[in-house]
Amino acid sequence: MLVLGQFEAVDLTHTLDGSAPTWTGGCGFSHEVKMDYDQGVRVLSYKCHAGVGTHMDAPSHFIKGGANMADIPLEQLIVPACVLDLSSKMHPDMFVMPEDILEYERKWGRIPENTLVLAYTGWEKYWKDSDRYRNADSSGKMHFPGFHVQTADLLLDRKIAGIGIDSLSPDGSNNKPANHFPVHEAILGAGRYIIENVAHLSKMPPCGAYALALPMKIAVGAEAAMRLVGLIPK
Amino acid sequence: MLVLGQFEAVDLTHTLDGSAPTWTGGCGFSHEVKMDYDQGVRVLSYKCHAGVGTHMDAPSHFIKGGANMADIPLEQLIVPACVLDLSSKMHPDMFVMPEDILEYERKWGRIPENTLVLAYTGWEKYWKDSDRYRNADSSGKMHFPGFHVQTADLLLDRKIAGIGIDSLSPDGSNNKPANHFPVHEAILGAGRYIIENVAHLSKMPPCGAYALALPMKIAVGAEAAMRLVGLIPK
Repeated sequence: MLVLGQFEAVDLTHTLDGSAPTWTGGCGFSHEVKMDYDQGVRVLSYKCHAGVGTHMDAPSHFIKGGANMADIPLEQLIVPACVLDLSSKMHPDMFVMPEDILEYERKWGRIPENTLVLAYTGWEKYWKDSDRYRNADSSGKMHFPGFHVQTADLLLDRKIAGIGIDSLSPDGSNNKPANHFPVHEAILGAGRYIIENVAHLSKMPPCGAYALALPMKIAVGAEAAMRLVGLIPK
Repeated sequence: MLVLGQFEAVDLTHTLDGSAPTWTGGCGFSHEVKMDYDQGVRVLSYKCHAGVGTHMDAPSHFIKGGANMADIPLEQLIVPACVLDLSSKMHPDMFVMPEDILEYERKWGRIPENTLVLAYTGWEKYWKDSDRYRNADSSGKMHFPGFHVQTADLLLDRKIAGIGIDSLSPDGSNNKPANHFPVHEAILGAGRYIIENVAHLSKMPPCGAYALALPMKIAVGAEAAMRLVGLIPK
Protein backbone atom coordinates (compact mmCIF):
# COMPACT_ATOMS: atom_id res chain seq x y z
CA MET A 1 0.00 0.00 0.00
CA LEU A 2 1.35 3.42 -0.91
CA VAL A 3 1.53 6.23 1.65
CA LEU A 4 0.56 9.84 0.89
CA GLY A 5 -0.98 8.33 -2.27
CA GLN A 6 2.37 8.09 -4.03
CA PHE A 7 5.26 6.65 -2.02
CA GLU A 8 6.47 3.25 -0.87
CA ALA A 9 7.57 3.65 2.77
CA VAL A 10 10.76 1.92 3.97
CA ASP A 11 11.66 1.85 7.66
CA LEU A 12 15.33 2.79 8.01
CA THR A 13 15.16 2.42 11.82
CA HIS A 14 16.53 -0.50 13.84
CA THR A 15 14.08 -1.95 16.38
CA LEU A 16 15.29 -0.85 19.81
CA ASP A 17 15.90 -3.24 22.68
CA GLY A 18 18.57 -3.94 25.30
CA SER A 19 20.83 -5.67 22.78
CA ALA A 20 21.48 -2.51 20.71
CA PRO A 21 25.24 -2.03 20.18
CA THR A 22 26.59 1.04 21.98
CA TRP A 23 29.70 3.20 21.88
CA THR A 24 30.80 2.07 25.36
CA GLY A 25 29.75 -1.56 24.91
CA GLY A 26 27.34 -1.51 27.86
CA CYS A 27 23.56 -1.75 27.78
CA GLY A 28 22.13 1.38 26.15
CA PHE A 29 18.42 0.73 26.62
CA SER A 30 16.38 -0.95 29.32
CA HIS A 31 12.77 -1.07 30.37
CA GLU A 32 11.00 -1.76 33.63
CA VAL A 33 7.46 -3.12 33.94
CA LYS A 34 5.62 -0.86 36.44
CA MET A 35 2.17 -2.49 36.05
CA ASP A 36 1.08 -5.49 34.03
CA TYR A 37 -1.99 -7.17 32.55
CA ASP A 38 -3.03 -8.69 35.89
CA GLN A 39 -3.89 -5.09 36.84
CA GLY A 40 -5.59 -4.47 33.48
CA VAL A 41 -2.85 -2.51 31.75
CA ARG A 42 0.83 -2.84 30.92
CA VAL A 43 2.82 0.25 31.98
CA LEU A 44 6.56 0.52 31.34
CA SER A 45 9.36 2.94 32.02
CA TYR A 46 12.53 3.31 29.95
CA LYS A 47 16.15 4.18 30.69
CA CYS A 48 18.48 4.86 27.77
CA HIS A 49 21.58 6.54 26.50
CA ALA A 50 20.50 9.64 24.60
CA GLY A 51 22.37 8.27 21.60
CA VAL A 52 21.02 4.74 21.32
CA GLY A 53 19.73 2.76 18.33
CA THR A 54 19.04 4.65 15.13
CA HIS A 55 19.43 8.18 16.48
CA MET A 56 20.21 11.78 15.65
CA ASP A 57 23.04 14.00 16.91
CA ALA A 58 21.96 17.64 17.09
CA PRO A 59 24.54 20.45 16.89
CA SER A 60 24.41 20.79 20.71
CA HIS A 61 26.06 17.35 21.02
CA PHE A 62 29.39 19.06 20.34
CA ILE A 63 28.59 22.77 20.12
CA LYS A 64 27.74 24.73 23.27
CA GLY A 65 24.69 26.84 22.40
CA GLY A 66 24.06 24.79 19.25
CA ALA A 67 20.58 23.69 18.22
CA ASN A 68 18.95 21.04 20.38
CA MET A 69 16.72 18.30 18.99
CA ALA A 70 13.53 20.34 19.43
CA ASP A 71 15.07 23.34 17.62
CA ILE A 72 15.68 21.70 14.23
CA PRO A 73 12.96 22.84 11.79
CA LEU A 74 10.81 20.17 10.12
CA GLU A 75 11.96 21.58 6.77
CA GLN A 76 15.43 20.19 7.55
CA LEU A 77 14.04 16.82 8.73
CA ILE A 78 11.73 16.00 5.81
CA VAL A 79 14.15 16.22 2.92
CA PRO A 80 15.44 14.58 -0.26
CA ALA A 81 17.68 11.57 0.41
CA CYS A 82 20.83 10.67 -1.53
CA VAL A 83 22.11 7.15 -0.84
CA LEU A 84 25.71 6.18 -1.69
CA ASP A 85 26.03 2.43 -2.12
CA LEU A 86 29.61 1.66 -1.06
CA SER A 87 28.85 -1.87 0.07
CA SER A 88 31.00 -3.49 -2.64
CA LYS A 89 34.15 -1.97 -1.10
CA MET A 90 33.19 -2.07 2.57
CA HIS A 91 35.96 -2.82 5.07
CA PRO A 92 36.28 -2.06 8.79
CA ASP A 93 38.57 0.97 8.36
CA MET A 94 36.95 2.48 5.31
CA PHE A 95 36.11 6.15 5.07
CA VAL A 96 33.69 7.64 2.58
CA MET A 97 36.04 9.77 0.46
CA PRO A 98 35.42 12.97 -1.53
CA GLU A 99 35.93 10.90 -4.70
CA ASP A 100 32.95 8.72 -3.70
CA ILE A 101 30.77 11.83 -3.65
CA LEU A 102 32.14 13.08 -6.96
CA GLU A 103 31.57 9.67 -8.56
CA TYR A 104 27.98 9.69 -7.22
CA GLU A 105 27.46 13.17 -8.68
CA ARG A 106 28.82 12.14 -12.08
CA LYS A 107 26.15 9.42 -12.21
CA TRP A 108 23.22 11.06 -10.46
CA GLY A 109 23.82 14.79 -10.63
CA ARG A 110 24.93 17.35 -8.08
CA ILE A 111 23.64 16.74 -4.56
CA PRO A 112 20.90 19.37 -4.04
CA GLU A 113 20.78 21.74 -1.08
CA ASN A 114 19.01 20.55 2.07
CA THR A 115 19.56 16.84 1.30
CA LEU A 116 20.21 14.01 3.75
CA VAL A 117 23.26 12.12 2.46
CA LEU A 118 23.23 8.48 3.60
CA ALA A 119 26.20 6.12 3.30
CA TYR A 120 25.22 2.50 2.80
CA THR A 121 28.40 0.61 3.60
CA GLY A 122 26.76 -2.72 4.45
CA TRP A 123 28.11 -2.58 8.03
CA GLU A 124 24.48 -2.70 9.26
CA LYS A 125 24.52 -6.48 8.71
CA TYR A 126 26.45 -6.84 12.01
CA TRP A 127 23.81 -4.94 14.04
CA LYS A 128 22.51 -8.06 15.80
CA ASP A 129 26.03 -8.97 17.01
CA SER A 130 27.15 -6.10 19.20
CA ASP A 131 30.80 -7.27 19.44
CA ARG A 132 31.07 -7.60 15.68
CA TYR A 133 29.34 -4.23 15.11
CA ARG A 134 31.65 -2.45 17.59
CA ASN A 135 34.64 -4.46 16.32
CA ALA A 136 37.09 -3.37 19.04
CA ASP A 137 40.69 -4.56 18.76
CA SER A 138 42.90 -5.54 21.72
CA SER A 139 43.66 -1.85 22.41
CA GLY A 140 39.92 -1.07 22.57
CA LYS A 141 39.99 0.84 19.29
CA MET A 142 36.79 0.21 17.32
CA HIS A 143 36.91 -0.38 13.57
CA PHE A 144 33.87 0.38 11.42
CA PRO A 145 33.14 2.59 8.39
CA GLY A 146 33.00 6.38 8.64
CA PHE A 147 33.29 9.56 6.56
CA HIS A 148 36.60 11.32 5.89
CA VAL A 149 36.59 14.89 7.18
CA GLN A 150 37.30 16.17 3.66
CA THR A 151 34.09 14.45 2.56
CA ALA A 152 32.22 16.26 5.32
CA ASP A 153 33.68 19.55 4.07
CA LEU A 154 32.66 18.76 0.48
CA LEU A 155 29.11 17.92 1.60
CA LEU A 156 28.89 21.14 3.61
CA ASP A 157 29.83 22.95 0.42
CA ARG A 158 26.70 21.33 -1.06
CA LYS A 159 24.68 22.82 1.86
CA ILE A 160 23.30 19.44 2.94
CA ALA A 161 20.77 18.99 5.78
CA GLY A 162 22.78 16.20 7.39
CA ILE A 163 24.59 12.92 6.96
CA GLY A 164 23.82 9.36 8.06
CA ILE A 165 25.68 6.06 8.14
CA ASP A 166 24.98 2.42 8.99
CA SER A 167 27.63 2.26 11.73
CA LEU A 168 28.14 3.67 15.23
CA SER A 169 29.72 6.94 14.10
CA PRO A 170 30.58 8.88 10.96
CA ASP A 171 34.04 9.35 12.51
CA GLY A 172 34.68 5.65 11.91
CA SER A 173 37.85 4.27 13.45
CA ASN A 174 39.09 7.68 14.68
CA ASN A 175 38.48 6.62 18.28
CA LYS A 176 41.92 5.58 19.56
CA PRO A 177 44.47 6.33 20.92
CA ALA A 178 42.55 9.57 21.60
CA ASN A 179 38.94 10.20 20.62
CA HIS A 180 39.04 12.31 17.51
CA PHE A 181 35.78 13.58 16.03
CA PRO A 182 36.60 15.81 13.03
CA VAL A 183 33.43 14.83 11.13
CA HIS A 184 31.16 15.45 14.12
CA GLU A 185 32.87 18.79 14.67
CA ALA A 186 32.55 19.83 11.02
CA ILE A 187 28.93 18.75 10.47
CA LEU A 188 27.53 19.80 13.87
CA GLY A 189 29.68 22.92 13.88
CA ALA A 190 27.97 23.95 10.63
CA GLY A 191 24.54 23.51 12.27
CA ARG A 192 23.76 20.28 10.40
CA TYR A 193 22.85 16.93 11.93
CA ILE A 194 24.21 13.37 11.99
CA ILE A 195 22.28 10.09 11.98
CA GLU A 196 23.96 6.95 13.30
CA ASN A 197 23.02 3.26 13.05
CA VAL A 198 20.84 3.63 9.96
CA ALA A 199 19.08 0.39 8.89
CA HIS A 200 17.88 -1.22 5.65
CA LEU A 201 19.62 1.20 3.31
CA SER A 202 19.85 -1.47 0.62
CA LYS A 203 16.15 -0.87 0.01
CA MET A 204 16.67 2.77 -0.98
CA PRO A 205 17.38 4.08 -4.49
CA PRO A 206 20.48 6.29 -5.00
CA CYS A 207 18.36 9.35 -5.64
CA GLY A 208 14.77 10.52 -6.05
CA ALA A 209 13.56 9.35 -2.64
CA TYR A 210 12.87 11.37 0.50
CA ALA A 211 13.67 10.88 4.18
CA LEU A 212 11.51 11.52 7.22
CA ALA A 213 14.15 12.02 9.91
CA LEU A 214 12.09 12.51 13.05
CA PRO A 215 13.82 12.39 16.46
CA MET A 216 12.11 12.56 19.83
CA LYS A 217 11.43 16.26 20.46
CA ILE A 218 13.51 16.59 23.64
CA ALA A 219 14.17 20.13 24.88
CA VAL A 220 17.68 19.39 26.17
CA GLY A 221 18.35 16.70 23.57
CA ALA A 222 21.88 16.68 22.23
CA GLU A 223 21.15 13.19 20.89
CA ALA A 224 17.86 11.30 20.64
CA ALA A 225 16.37 8.09 19.35
CA MET A 226 14.40 8.70 16.19
CA ARG A 227 12.26 7.19 13.49
CA LEU A 228 13.96 7.35 10.11
CA VAL A 229 11.72 6.48 7.17
CA GLY A 230 12.45 6.49 3.44
CA LEU A 231 9.74 7.48 0.94
CA ILE A 232 10.27 6.12 -2.57
CA PRO A 233 8.09 7.64 -5.33
CA LYS A 234 6.04 5.04 -7.23
CA MET B 1 9.33 26.13 2.63
CA LEU B 2 7.25 23.16 1.48
CA VAL B 3 8.27 19.57 2.29
CA LEU B 4 8.08 16.72 -0.24
CA GLY B 5 7.58 19.50 -2.76
CA GLN B 6 3.93 19.97 -1.88
CA PHE B 7 3.08 20.10 1.84
CA GLU B 8 3.29 22.58 4.68
CA ALA B 9 4.58 20.65 7.72
CA VAL B 10 3.05 21.33 11.15
CA ASP B 11 4.59 19.86 14.29
CA LEU B 12 1.80 18.34 16.40
CA THR B 13 4.30 17.24 19.09
CA HIS B 14 4.86 18.91 22.45
CA THR B 15 8.51 19.59 23.30
CA LEU B 16 9.49 17.09 25.99
CA ASP B 17 11.08 18.07 29.27
CA GLY B 18 10.68 17.33 32.99
CA SER B 19 7.62 19.57 33.28
CA ALA B 20 5.41 17.41 31.01
CA PRO B 21 2.08 16.66 32.73
CA THR B 22 1.70 12.97 33.61
CA TRP B 23 -1.10 10.61 34.59
CA THR B 24 0.30 10.15 38.10
CA GLY B 25 1.34 13.76 38.57
CA GLY B 26 5.02 12.92 39.14
CA CYS B 27 7.97 13.68 36.90
CA GLY B 28 7.68 11.66 33.68
CA PHE B 29 10.95 12.59 32.00
CA SER B 30 14.42 13.36 33.30
CA HIS B 31 17.90 13.57 31.88
CA GLU B 32 21.36 13.18 33.35
CA VAL B 33 24.51 14.78 31.95
CA LYS B 34 27.14 12.00 31.70
CA MET B 35 29.83 14.12 29.96
CA ASP B 36 29.89 17.79 29.04
CA TYR B 37 31.63 20.31 26.82
CA ASP B 38 34.69 20.53 29.10
CA GLN B 39 35.42 17.01 27.83
CA GLY B 40 34.66 17.98 24.24
CA VAL B 41 31.18 16.49 23.93
CA ARG B 42 27.83 16.61 25.71
CA VAL B 43 26.49 13.11 26.46
CA LEU B 44 23.14 12.60 28.18
CA SER B 45 21.03 9.73 29.41
CA TYR B 46 17.22 9.76 29.75
CA LYS B 47 14.72 8.18 32.10
CA CYS B 48 11.04 8.37 31.23
CA HIS B 49 7.61 6.91 31.58
CA ALA B 50 6.87 4.96 28.40
CA GLY B 51 3.75 7.11 27.99
CA VAL B 52 5.14 10.63 28.34
CA GLY B 53 4.61 13.76 26.26
CA THR B 54 2.96 13.38 22.88
CA HIS B 55 2.98 9.59 22.69
CA MET B 56 1.37 6.51 21.18
CA ASP B 57 -0.39 3.62 22.91
CA ALA B 58 0.06 0.37 20.97
CA PRO B 59 -2.47 -2.47 21.31
CA SER B 60 -0.10 -4.25 23.76
CA HIS B 61 -0.72 -1.44 26.29
CA PHE B 62 -3.99 -3.20 27.18
CA ILE B 63 -4.01 -6.40 25.11
CA LYS B 64 -1.71 -9.28 26.03
CA GLY B 65 -0.12 -10.46 22.76
CA GLY B 66 -1.27 -7.29 20.98
CA ALA B 67 0.99 -5.39 18.58
CA ASN B 68 3.94 -3.59 20.11
CA MET B 69 5.23 -0.24 18.86
CA ALA B 70 7.71 -1.83 16.45
CA ASP B 71 4.99 -4.06 14.96
CA ILE B 72 2.69 -1.34 13.62
CA PRO B 73 3.17 -1.05 9.82
CA LEU B 74 4.21 2.31 8.39
CA GLU B 75 1.08 2.17 6.22
CA GLN B 76 -0.97 2.66 9.42
CA LEU B 77 1.31 5.45 10.68
CA ILE B 78 1.46 7.66 7.57
CA VAL B 79 -2.22 8.23 6.95
CA PRO B 80 -4.94 10.78 6.16
CA ALA B 81 -5.87 12.94 9.16
CA CYS B 82 -9.38 14.09 10.07
CA VAL B 83 -9.49 16.85 12.68
CA LEU B 84 -12.68 17.54 14.65
CA ASP B 85 -12.68 21.09 15.99
CA LEU B 86 -14.72 20.89 19.20
CA SER B 87 -12.96 23.79 20.90
CA SER B 88 -16.07 26.00 20.94
CA LYS B 89 -17.82 23.58 23.33
CA MET B 90 -14.82 22.41 25.33
CA HIS B 91 -15.37 21.74 29.03
CA PRO B 92 -13.46 19.55 31.51
CA ASP B 93 -15.92 16.65 31.43
CA MET B 94 -16.73 16.67 27.74
CA PHE B 95 -16.73 13.53 25.65
CA VAL B 96 -16.55 13.49 21.87
CA MET B 97 -19.96 12.03 21.00
CA PRO B 98 -21.13 9.97 18.01
CA GLU B 99 -23.17 13.02 16.93
CA ASP B 100 -19.93 15.02 16.65
CA ILE B 101 -18.61 12.46 14.17
CA LEU B 102 -21.88 12.42 12.21
CA GLU B 103 -21.92 16.22 12.07
CA TYR B 104 -18.32 16.18 10.82
CA GLU B 105 -19.26 13.65 8.14
CA ARG B 106 -22.27 15.72 7.01
CA LYS B 107 -19.87 18.62 6.35
CA TRP B 108 -16.75 16.86 5.15
CA GLY B 109 -17.83 13.43 3.94
CA ARG B 110 -17.51 9.96 5.41
CA ILE B 111 -14.27 9.33 7.31
CA PRO B 112 -12.16 7.13 5.00
CA GLU B 113 -10.60 3.83 6.05
CA ASN B 114 -7.14 3.95 7.63
CA THR B 115 -7.53 7.54 8.86
CA LEU B 116 -6.16 9.09 12.05
CA VAL B 117 -9.07 10.89 13.74
CA LEU B 118 -7.86 13.76 15.93
CA ALA B 119 -10.04 15.62 18.42
CA TYR B 120 -9.07 19.26 18.89
CA THR B 121 -10.81 20.23 22.11
CA GLY B 122 -8.56 23.15 23.00
CA TRP B 123 -7.44 21.44 26.23
CA GLU B 124 -3.86 21.59 24.95
CA LYS B 125 -3.70 25.23 26.06
CA TYR B 126 -3.16 24.02 29.63
CA TRP B 127 -0.11 21.86 28.73
CA LYS B 128 2.39 24.22 30.37
CA ASP B 129 0.47 24.09 33.69
CA SER B 130 0.55 20.47 34.78
CA ASP B 131 -2.00 20.94 37.61
CA ARG B 132 -4.46 22.65 35.28
CA TYR B 133 -3.91 20.05 32.54
CA ARG B 134 -4.46 17.13 34.95
CA ASN B 135 -7.28 19.05 36.67
CA ALA B 136 -7.71 16.68 39.62
CA ASP B 137 -10.54 17.37 42.07
CA SER B 138 -10.35 16.82 45.83
CA SER B 139 -11.02 13.09 45.35
CA GLY B 140 -8.11 12.83 42.92
CA LYS B 141 -10.40 12.35 39.94
CA MET B 142 -9.01 14.12 36.88
CA HIS B 143 -11.30 16.08 34.56
CA PHE B 144 -10.33 16.64 30.93
CA PRO B 145 -11.89 15.91 27.53
CA GLY B 146 -12.16 12.38 26.15
CA PHE B 147 -14.09 10.25 23.66
CA HIS B 148 -17.33 8.46 24.51
CA VAL B 149 -17.03 4.70 24.02
CA GLN B 150 -19.90 4.80 21.51
CA THR B 151 -17.80 7.24 19.47
CA ALA B 152 -14.92 4.78 19.54
CA ASP B 153 -17.27 2.06 18.28
CA LEU B 154 -18.55 4.30 15.49
CA LEU B 155 -14.97 5.12 14.42
CA LEU B 156 -14.02 1.44 14.45
CA ASP B 157 -16.94 0.89 12.11
CA ARG B 158 -15.17 3.37 9.81
CA LYS B 159 -12.02 1.17 10.03
CA ILE B 160 -9.82 4.02 11.26
CA ALA B 161 -6.05 3.68 11.87
CA GLY B 162 -6.27 5.33 15.28
CA ILE B 163 -7.48 8.25 17.36
CA GLY B 164 -5.74 11.16 19.04
CA ILE B 165 -6.68 13.88 21.49
CA ASP B 166 -5.10 16.97 23.07
CA SER B 167 -5.50 15.67 26.64
CA LEU B 168 -3.97 12.97 28.85
CA SER B 169 -6.36 10.21 27.76
CA PRO B 170 -9.20 9.53 25.34
CA ASP B 171 -11.04 8.04 28.32
CA GLY B 172 -11.40 11.55 29.73
CA SER B 173 -12.73 11.77 33.24
CA ASN B 174 -13.45 8.02 33.54
CA ASN B 175 -10.64 7.68 36.07
CA LYS B 176 -12.42 7.64 39.45
CA PRO B 177 -13.69 6.08 41.65
CA ALA B 178 -12.19 3.14 39.71
CA ASN B 179 -10.07 3.42 36.60
CA HIS B 180 -12.33 2.71 33.68
CA PHE B 181 -10.85 2.57 30.19
CA PRO B 182 -13.60 1.60 27.73
CA VAL B 183 -12.15 3.66 24.88
CA HIS B 184 -8.64 2.25 25.34
CA GLU B 185 -10.11 -1.25 25.45
CA ALA B 186 -12.22 -0.74 22.31
CA ILE B 187 -9.56 0.96 20.16
CA LEU B 188 -6.55 -1.11 21.28
CA GLY B 189 -8.67 -4.27 21.37
CA ALA B 190 -9.44 -3.70 17.69
CA GLY B 191 -5.70 -3.47 16.93
CA ARG B 192 -5.78 0.31 16.41
CA TYR B 193 -3.66 2.90 18.21
CA ILE B 194 -4.21 5.93 20.44
CA ILE B 195 -2.25 9.20 20.54
CA GLU B 196 -2.34 11.32 23.70
CA ASN B 197 -1.23 14.90 24.38
CA VAL B 198 -1.45 16.06 20.78
CA ALA B 199 -0.27 19.67 20.21
CA HIS B 200 -1.07 22.56 17.86
CA LEU B 201 -4.19 21.01 16.35
CA SER B 202 -5.64 24.44 15.66
CA LYS B 203 -3.19 24.66 12.76
CA MET B 204 -4.71 21.65 10.97
CA PRO B 205 -7.57 21.73 8.46
CA PRO B 206 -10.61 19.48 9.13
CA CYS B 207 -9.75 17.21 6.21
CA GLY B 208 -7.37 16.80 3.30
CA ALA B 209 -4.19 16.72 5.39
CA TYR B 210 -2.01 13.76 6.37
CA ALA B 211 -0.34 12.68 9.60
CA LEU B 212 3.11 11.23 10.15
CA ALA B 213 2.60 9.36 13.44
CA LEU B 214 6.06 7.98 14.17
CA PRO B 215 6.77 6.53 17.64
CA MET B 216 10.14 5.30 18.88
CA LYS B 217 10.54 1.78 17.48
CA ILE B 218 10.79 -0.04 20.80
CA ALA B 219 10.53 -3.84 20.69
CA VAL B 220 8.66 -4.14 24.01
CA GLY B 221 6.95 -0.78 23.65
CA ALA B 222 3.38 -0.72 24.86
CA GLU B 223 3.61 3.07 24.85
CA ALA B 224 6.30 5.35 23.41
CA ALA B 225 7.13 8.99 22.86
CA MET B 226 6.66 9.92 19.24
CA ARG B 227 6.93 12.62 16.65
CA LEU B 228 3.52 13.57 15.26
CA VAL B 229 3.61 15.81 12.19
CA GLY B 230 0.77 17.13 10.05
CA LEU B 231 1.25 17.58 6.29
CA ILE B 232 -1.10 20.10 4.69
CA PRO B 233 -1.30 20.08 0.86
CA LYS B 234 -0.48 23.46 -0.69
